[in-house]
Amino acid sequence: MPQLTIRGIAPERVIAISEALVRQLADVCGCGTDNFTFDCLQTVSAMDGKRVDTYPFVEVAWFERGMQTRDRFAETITKHLLAAGVPEVEIAFKVYSEEGYYINGMRCDAL
Amino acid sequence: MPQLTIRGIAPERVIAISEALVRQLADVCGCGTDNFTFDCLQTVSAMDGKRVDTYPFVEVAWFERGMQTRDRFAETITKHLLAAGVPEVEIAFKVYSEEGYYINGMRCDAL
Amino acid sequence: MPQLTIRGIAPERVIAISEALVRQLADVCGCGTDNFTFDCLQTVSAMDGKRVDTYPFVEVAWFERGMQTRDRFAETITKHLLAAGVPEVEIAFKVYSEEGYYINGMRCDAL
Repeated sequence: MPQLTIRGIAPERVIAISEALVRQLADVCGCGTDNFTFDCLQTVSAMDGKRVDTYPFVEVAWFERGMQTRDRFAETITKHLLAAGVPEVEIAFKVYSEEGYYINGMRCDAL
Repeated sequence: MPQLTIRGIAPERVIAISEALVRQLADVCGCGTDNFTFDCLQTVSAMDGKRVDTYPFVEVAWFERGMQTRDRFAETITKHLLAAGVPEVEIAFKVYSEEGYYINGMRCDAL
Repeated sequence: MPQLTIRGIAPERVIAISEALVRQLADVCGCGTDNFTFDCLQTVSAMDGKRVDTYPFVEVAWFERGMQTRDRFAETITKHLLAAGVPEVEIAFKVYSEEGYYINGMRCDAL
C-alpha cells in the first residue's frame, strides 16, 4: 500500500509513467517506493447497447493520510496521466483500516 | 459515477441491457446518462477444488443518495438482470466520499 | 459473501486450495460453504518502467463479524496461501453494510 487499481488506461501507458510516478508518490508520502503497487484491471465496458472503451479511473486503496497528502497524491497521479495523453482523470480513495489489514497473518494495528 | 462493476455476467448480456438500464438509472438519480459506467471484470473463480462460473455480482460505487434512491436503483438493476436471464442478483453499494474523490485533480467537495 | 477477490496469485493455486480453505472459513464463520466466493482478477502490473508480477493480495468483502472472527479468518487464508507457496500474504477487509446490500432486490437489513 498504497495500491493503485487502474481501469480504462492501457497498461503500456501505466508502465511508461510508472518509474517517475512511483518516485513522486513516495516523496509525497515520505515512504519507500516499494510500498506501492500499480495494477491494471482487464475490463469490458458497455453503454447504450454497445461495447465502449472503459472510462479511465484510478482507485487508490490506502490508510488515510489526511487531506494535504491526499490532494498532493491525487495531483501527482493526475499530472502524469494527463501528460501521458489520458483525456480525463478521475481518482477515488478507498480507505482501509489498520485493524482490518493483515500482513502474513498479523493485524496491522498490532504491528 | 455511479459506476457499476460487474462480475459473473457475460459482457454481451450487459451490453444488451445497457441502453434501457442507463436511462432508467438516470431517471432514478435525476441526472444525465453520461454519469454512468458499466464495467465487466474478467475473473476466474474457484470452489471445491474446481474452476467454477463466477457468481453474478454488481458493486455500485457512488456518492450516497439515501435509502429511497438506493432501493430504486437496486430494484432497477435487479429487474433488468433477472429479465436478461441472470438467475440471482446480488448488489452491494460502495460509498465514495466527495472529499476523497478527484476529477482532473480537483477534490469533489471543493467543486 | 464473504467474497474473496484475489490478485497476483495464479488461479490454479487458488483452485488447488479452494476445497480445504472454504471448509475452514465456513467453520470460522459458523456458516455454510455455499456463502463463499473466490474470484481471481486478471491484472497487469507496472513498476519502475517495467511490467511486473502482480503483488499477491486478497480483499475480503463481508459484513463485519468482529475482531476475533476476522483474525481467525485472515489466519486461515494466510496459512493456506503460504503453504501453497505464495511468499507474502496481504489481506484487507472491506466491510459492506446490510443496508447497502441487496439480494434479488431485497435490502439485507430488511430480510
